[in-house]
Amino acid sequence: MRMVDVILKKRNGHVLTKEEISFFINGYTEGTLPDYQVSALLMAIYYSGMTEEETANLTEAMVASGETIDLSAIEGHKVDKHSTGGVGDKTTFIVGPLVASVGVPVAKMSGRGLGHTGGTLDKLESIPGFTIELDKEAFIEQVNTHKLSVAGQTGNLAPADKKLYALRDVTGTVDSIPLIAGSIMSKKLASGADSIVLDVKTGSGAFMKTMKESQDLARQMVTIGKHLGRNTIAVISDMNQPLGHEIGNANEVKEAIDVLLGKNIPDLRRLSLELAAHMTVLAEVFDSYETAYIELEKNLDNGKAFQAFRSFVEAQGGDISVIDNPDKLPKASYEIEIKAKETGYISSMDAELIGIAAMHLGAGRATKEDTINHGVGIRLLKKLGEHVSIDEPIAILFSDTNVARQSEEAMQQAYTLSDKKSDVVDLIHEVIK
Amino acid sequence: MRMVDVILKKRNGHVLTKEEISFFINGYTEGTLPDYQVSALLMAIYYSGMTEEETANLTEAMVASGETIDLSAIEGHKVDKHSTGGVGDKTTFIVGPLVASVGVPVAKMSGRGLGHTGGTLDKLESIPGFTIELDKEAFIEQVNTHKLSVAGQTGNLAPADKKLYALRDVTGTVDSIPLIAGSIMSKKLASGADSIVLDVKTGSGAFMKTMKESQDLARQMVTIGKHLGRNTIAVISDMNQPLGHEIGNANEVKEAIDVLLGKNIPDLRRLSLELAAHMTVLAEVFDSYETAYIELEKNLDNGKAFQAFRSFVEAQGGDISVIDNPDKLPKASYEIEIKAKETGYISSMDAELIGIAAMHLGAGRATKEDTINHGVGIRLLKKLGEHVSIDEPIAILFSDTNVARQSEEAMQQAYTLSDKKSDVVDLIHEVIK
Repeated sequence: MRMVDVILKKRNGHVLTKEEISFFINGYTEGTLPDYQVSALLMAIYYSGMTEEETANLTEAMVASGETIDLSAIEGHKVDKHSTGGVGDKTTFIVGPLVASVGVPVAKMSGRGLGHTGGTLDKLESIPGFTIELDKEAFIEQVNTHKLSVAGQTGNLAPADKKLYALRDVTGTVDSIPLIAGSIMSKKLASGADSIVLDVKTGSGAFMKTMKESQDLARQMVTIGKHLGRNTIAVISDMNQPLGHEIGNANEVKEAIDVLLGKNIPDLRRLSLELAAHMTVLAEVFDSYETAYIELEKNLDNGKAFQAFRSFVEAQGGDISVIDNPDKLPKASYEIEIKAKETGYISSMDAELIGIAAMHLGAGRATKEDTINHGVGIRLLKKLGEHVSIDEPIAILFSDTNVARQSEEAMQQAYTLSDKKSDVVDLIHEVIK
Repeated sequence: MRMVDVILKKRNGHVLTKEEISFFINGYTEGTLPDYQVSALLMAIYYSGMTEEETANLTEAMVASGETIDLSAIEGHKVDKHSTGGVGDKTTFIVGPLVASVGVPVAKMSGRGLGHTGGTLDKLESIPGFTIELDKEAFIEQVNTHKLSVAGQTGNLAPADKKLYALRDVTGTVDSIPLIAGSIMSKKLASGADSIVLDVKTGSGAFMKTMKESQDLARQMVTIGKHLGRNTIAVISDMNQPLGHEIGNANEVKEAIDVLLGKNIPDLRRLSLELAAHMTVLAEVFDSYETAYIELEKNLDNGKAFQAFRSFVEAQGGDISVIDNPDKLPKASYEIEIKAKETGYISSMDAELIGIAAMHLGAGRATKEDTINHGVGIRLLKKLGEHVSIDEPIAILFSDTNVARQSEEAMQQAYTLSDKKSDVVDLIHEVIK
């Protein structure tokens, strides 16, 4: 088989066979195919697309390129959750304990943040003492004991994806839906869960800005999961504004604790329950989504979910007194108010720009080498549809400098006001099974 | 400027600026841009195309990437001719002397053949003693004295094109019309002629199989030439069958000599006169195409064109006695007849397959390392529209082995017979100025 023929076949709009896809993935992982042929094929895939079967074969070959994690030593039906990335998304800290509270094991490998979205591991590390470095035995033992662990990825999972992603990043081939779907799903499938719930974000703060793209990505990922023998559901959720009110590492942990203690932060509580309900139905703990939702809501209100979170943090070395008194979490030195420049209703928010404002404060990384400041962040005082008067504070920046010009400007640009109150957008757009 | 932004801009269907194109061409020539980014951009160009201005800027940057040949020491208006490649195309040996016979200087740098089309230099080397290696001074002096020289390319002309072509060859990005146009024109423009006549072949034996592609390529090349200050004309000529009757190196030289001696081999004589007429009009030797055609025809019939060929060969060290007695040209040991398998009219010929049959005999190269056998080739006894009876010979293979299975099979496959005589196709489809 010659790589140039594989490139030409895809370029001319034909469907690649499983053998051709394996040839490309294996050859690239092993270093027998040069970057320049692979980047040409990636660009041809960007333009010509891939069928569902091709995308499933691509994903399978990427999974097979490295190690896979064997979770069979964990009792019960393991369910994983994955978000495509948004701003202010701290659902993992609510969903994990919630699902664990009804006995479903959650063995989650997570990543660090880059760009305008934060990373789960970075956020957890704002809890003093918390470690994300667990060896395989400790990880499995913790899930068997506490039903929940969140650890940094270990092992050489889907190395083909790592190599391909680095190449896509510099060759203008990142935003191809089959390549994104294959990249996400290869890592999830290698992580060993029995079932997967995907939270596909759509809107101004998401990587997919339109519903069409989001639906397309969601459908392709669900199809891949099913093709490879995993029950997979995708929830398409709105990301036209940050989730909840808090952005930043300690900020988000604090807000998650509030919800775990029963506080009603509508969008955050609603989405967490939605995702957890689907996970527990897939794990066959509940017969129906409706029952699951009602039962899980009880565990938010009766403190069981909070207890599950508390014991998870304790098991991973975190300081429990901080969980019981979140004011002890790291906190920035200055509070800078962002004020409305005019009077009106908030008609749109650029969530990506708000994420970038938080990144500039130090809450996230512009490049992989940047370090995180756990105490900085943003509190949104007003969200979509709310009325504000001129000079009224709409957000607070938590900053370690008393002036934060870049972030302040980004925040001002992120809001659009209007005379008329616009319709409220649905939080849950669609569930794809 | 970042290469990934240039790739994304083209990928998203936008027009690249002159600066962006220079950045890409210069960076690639100098080795500061990696192959994998360039191949991704080439694939994006394949899909998104280029405007006329982009293609002209690309060509200009490729010309500027290396040396250009200064022909100013040659008196008169220098006209070059370039063919996009066909089977049995020996027009250079007729057009060159013909144009020289009316005093127009032809300083031609030529190439070797690869694949199903033969190369001008290989064909000339079938004349014993003939050398294509001339230094610049000898080349110019010969053109001033004899008005004609054909030499191998010297100097580092359009190195960007060489590097890009090698990359395109292995990344499935050869058949992009703007890239082909830029590649051909960069070499022609660097070769220093004042005006250029392009013979764009169309049909089964050409690289462009359809009229639409051929017209598109022809228009783009004419536009590039004019953008860069050269008078350029393209003739779209038919390549649904080989030109003339002879294919192979010595075979083609012999057939060219026949035409130079006044023999009427209709398609070959007609196309040679067509190209020569445009060249002499561009050189302002004749006022009109019609006058040029009539005057040039006289020089075919009165032996002046033949004399020009003879003195050109002599100047480059060729054995003149062979030109006067072409039977002394190299000749293969065996003649293998190809016979019609049925009775009927020849309704189509796969000229590419006939070219491949000649290549397998040894007349051409499958890879750059292959050596040429000057004596082998094919004589077509029947061409499009002619009637043949079952078992009647339709072609003769000149072979150095008494069996030539691959070539014989290719020849059988190349012909389609029909009960009805089909319409004759025009030889000259269109002239684009």
